[in-house]
Amino acid sequence: MLAVKTIDEVRRVVHPAKQGGKRVGLVPTMGALHEGHLSLVHAAKSECDVVVVSIFVNPIQFGPNEDFEKYPRPIEKDLELCRQAGVDVVFYPEVQEMYPRELLTTVRVSKMTQTLCGKSRPTHFEGVTTVVTKLFNVVGPDFAYFGQKDAQQALVLRRMTADLDVPVTIRICPTIREESGLAKSSRNQYLNDDQRVQATSLSRALKEAVSLIKSGKKETSELIGAMETIIKTAGPCRIDYISVNDLETLEEVSRVQKPVVIALAVNIGPARLIDNIMVDAEGNEIIMFGRNVV
Amino acid sequence: MLAVKTIDEVRRVVHPAKQGGKRVGLVPTMGALHEGHLSLVHAAKSECDVVVVSIFVNPIQFGPNEDFEKYPRPIEKDLELCRQAGVDVVFYPEVQEMYPRELLTTVRVSKMTQTLCGKSRPTHFEGVTTVVTKLFNVVGPDFAYFGQKDAQQALVLRRMTADLDVPVTIRICPTIREESGLAKSSRNQYLNDDQRVQATSLSRALKEAVSLIKSGKKETSELIGAMETIIKTAGPCRIDYISVNDLETLEEVSRVQKPVVIALAVNIGPARLIDNIMVDAEGNEIIMFGRNVV
Repeated sequence: MLAVKTIDEVRRVVHPAKQGGKRVGLVPTMGALHEGHLSLVHAAKSECDVVVVSIFVNPIQFGPNEDFEKYPRPIEKDLELCRQAGVDVVFYPEVQEMYPRELLTTVRVSKMTQTLCGKSRPTHFEGVTTVVTKLFNVVGPDFAYFGQKDAQQALVLRRMTADLDVPVTIRICPTIREESGLAKSSRNQYLNDDQRVQATSLSRALKEAVSLIKSGKKETSELIGAMETIIKTAGPCRIDYISVNDLETLEEVSRVQKPVVIALAVNIGPARLIDNIMVDAEGNEIIMFGRNVV
Repeated sequence: MLAVKTIDEVRRVVHPAKQGGKRVGLVPTMGALHEGHLSLVHAAKSECDVVVVSIFVNPIQFGPNEDFEKYPRPIEKDLELCRQAGVDVVFYPEVQEMYPRELLTTVRVSKMTQTLCGKSRPTHFEGVTTVVTKLFNVVGPDFAYFGQKDAQQALVLRRMTADLDVPVTIRICPTIREESGLAKSSRNQYLNDDQRVQATSLSRALKEAVSLIKSGKKETSELIGAMETIIKTAGPCRIDYISVNDLETLEEVSRVQKPVVIALAVNIGPARLIDNIMVDAEGNEIIMFGRNVV
């Protein structure tokens, strides 16, 4: 495995591979790797010849009062996990390498970034779309892998890629969960034992919403009410949002009549946790992997 | 020469060429080709194996009261000029091919787009940077060629390319002029004979400014005053701006102490004409071709 910190080094490795007709897969991460990330690596390895993982805690996607400084950066452990997973290239640049001058250029996706996490994190997605555009330009991948856990991010990036004709296929891979149902997240590290138990209320709430839809209850207000009860009953928390949104446009819907994403963001102790599930109008879960058409 | 209207067709031709190690050059145009465009083609042919010309009157870079509808579209003549010039591929998509769905994603460059033409055309450069990003993603060129006549556009695109790590080298090629000094432009077609004579005042004004700098006069106000006199004396017109700006940041300067672009935009009859010259603090003309470092 090659671990490099500069754009030039990445290109020196990947460019000849692409010239040689190899399929290149990119797994963009902020490090603090867990099984969710590793499932993306496995997906990449299954269909690509060269797998690149980027590890970069991207400052421009954090708001002023968010956790950029305290975000975990266990780089040696991450490199070892990548090595064990059979990654070919790890790109882990310093901030200066990615932003060597004042950044005047940004990539923005409108509308889809105004709902869900976009409401409380107004500059977040612009930071994501800009850095991912840069990573795409640095690596030139044929495939790029994102977790459904960050559903809005994945759907926004899929739309960006389509709108700008970026020659990459976006793969959205299933959320990986602990046995308790808790979605794997680097930010779970912020939780103590009690909070970790409490945090299982998020996935329980989503499951309950799906059960309700399957039983014919399709009014969003009813679904949200039931989810809110489950989450509030589990312990002290601050709910950022619980929302049911159109799976394509990410607009809020008042009734489940088309494919939707049921999503929530809840602050438990020091951690802002998000989770979601995607279902059709009958409550059947939707698997996004392979759904590349916007 | 291959002339195609779809993204798929372009990629089917260019992708194997790139795989085979060929150097690909892109000349993005809005058609109504003149010697200025052809000089870009010649530059591309001199250093690339495959030369692609795109012809697309891009709706999103026109303001609501601008000349999108009446912009000339002599496609048969353009194709013949490309053929004669030895172009390999012409990509001339319909609007629907470039914008098949609501465009949610845009690429923006801040600051540099707020001055000069950006003041009176506030959405113009976002339209340019977005469509050029799309064309780069469609063609995947190693080199892309722009005329210095559209100086702000060229410098904004060079900055965008650097900021986003786009793997393309931007070439800024010299303005091509008629014997009268009038910069070649597709919009010169809008002028009648008298207006065409009057329009030579733009290049005469720029020359006068350079003479003044060479004689030691470096106050912007004095330079602009002299240029304004020349242009107003030539006939009825509406001056949008006459400005002296830092060549890197495009910020207005009050004194010529570093490399600058002296630029102007003047409405003569139905045509909005622009022209510029780039000089150092001593008034020596600066040739941008090959200056790729931001």
